[in-house]
Amino acid sequence: MTTSKEGIAVKMVLDAWYAKVNQFDKLLAELSDEQLLNEVSPGRNRGIYLLGHLTVMANSMLPLLGYGENPTPHLVTPFVKTPDKQTSDLPSVTELRQEWEKAKTLLGEHIAATSTDEWFRKHTSVSEEDFAKEPHRNKLNVMLSRACHVDYHLGQLIFLKNSK
Amino acid sequence: MTTSKEGIAVKMVLDAWYAKVNQFDKLLAELSDEQLLNEVSPGRNRGIYLLGHLTVMANSMLPLLGYGENPTPHLVTPFVKTPDKQTSDLPSVTELRQEWEKAKTLLGEHIAATSTDEWFRKHTSVSEEDFAKEPHRNKLNVMLSRACHVDYHLGQLIFLKNSK
Repeated sequence: MTTSKEGIAVKMVLDAWYAKVNQFDKLLAELSDEQLLNEVSPGRNRGIYLLGHLTVMANSMLPLLGYGENPTPHLVTPFVKTPDKQTSDLPSVTELRQEWEKAKTLLGEHIAATSTDEWFRKHTSVSEEDFAKEPHRNKLNVMLSRACHVDYHLGQLIFLKNSK
Repeated sequence: MTTSKEGIAVKMVLDAWYAKVNQFDKLLAELSDEQLLNEVSPGRNRGIYLLGHLTVMANSMLPLLGYGENPTPHLVTPFVKTPDKQTSDLPSVTELRQEWEKAKTLLGEHIAATSTDEWFRKHTSVSEEDFAKEPHRNKLNVMLSRACHVDYHLGQLIFLKNSK
């Protein structure tokens, strides 16, 4: 059991990530495929778009954390670079639910194999030179900002509950 | 300049808090009082309620972090314990904007005076006994969870932009 302050900080951030992931999973289990096709609010993103968006964002953490390639590069354009409702060629909700499961599981395997020291090393989109001056731009900070990012969209997806 | 890992972790979490606070401030500056009286989505909380809610949540961090009393205990019932639109006796948007400014400033003063070691000490709602077993239940974790909490509601408040 680690009781170093840095070990505690790592646990705090990873706990936050998993709390948000579990909250998202719980909501996904409660929402039907039909509900996920609704807009979270009139004129706003649909549930399917946010499901795809959060899946891509999870997969895009793999290269950012130095764990390897993004396994779903084809989902970046429709779910990150393009606003919702501008592409008719999206995967089905069923497929996206499976992609989310895979993304979460694969990321979880890498997270579990990462040491405390490693969390404080630089992520891949910051240079060695910048990192020397800004050591907070580390892998753990990626987890922290992405945990909050999930929360941002959970605040929207919750509106789909009780929708027709 | 601190380069200890725990110092870096503190900076990461406080940066996240201030990023969310600044994002909220920017949005508040863009929204009119009239827009803040709208529901963020049909049948959901109004902007005024979420403004009061985030203000109370910021003020309630003071006792939790051991910084003193919540300066606005009278706002807890209307903005935390009671759902929106069940009380007609709410402060005006103008008053709530001022309360938010005060809450953010007061909390900021206490944050600035807190040492790295202090951030890793227990918050006031966990017992010494539990904290010995769960040292992640510290003051820094309060900041982390509250930063994400702001993000959750920012995802909703953003819907007020371009509302009538």
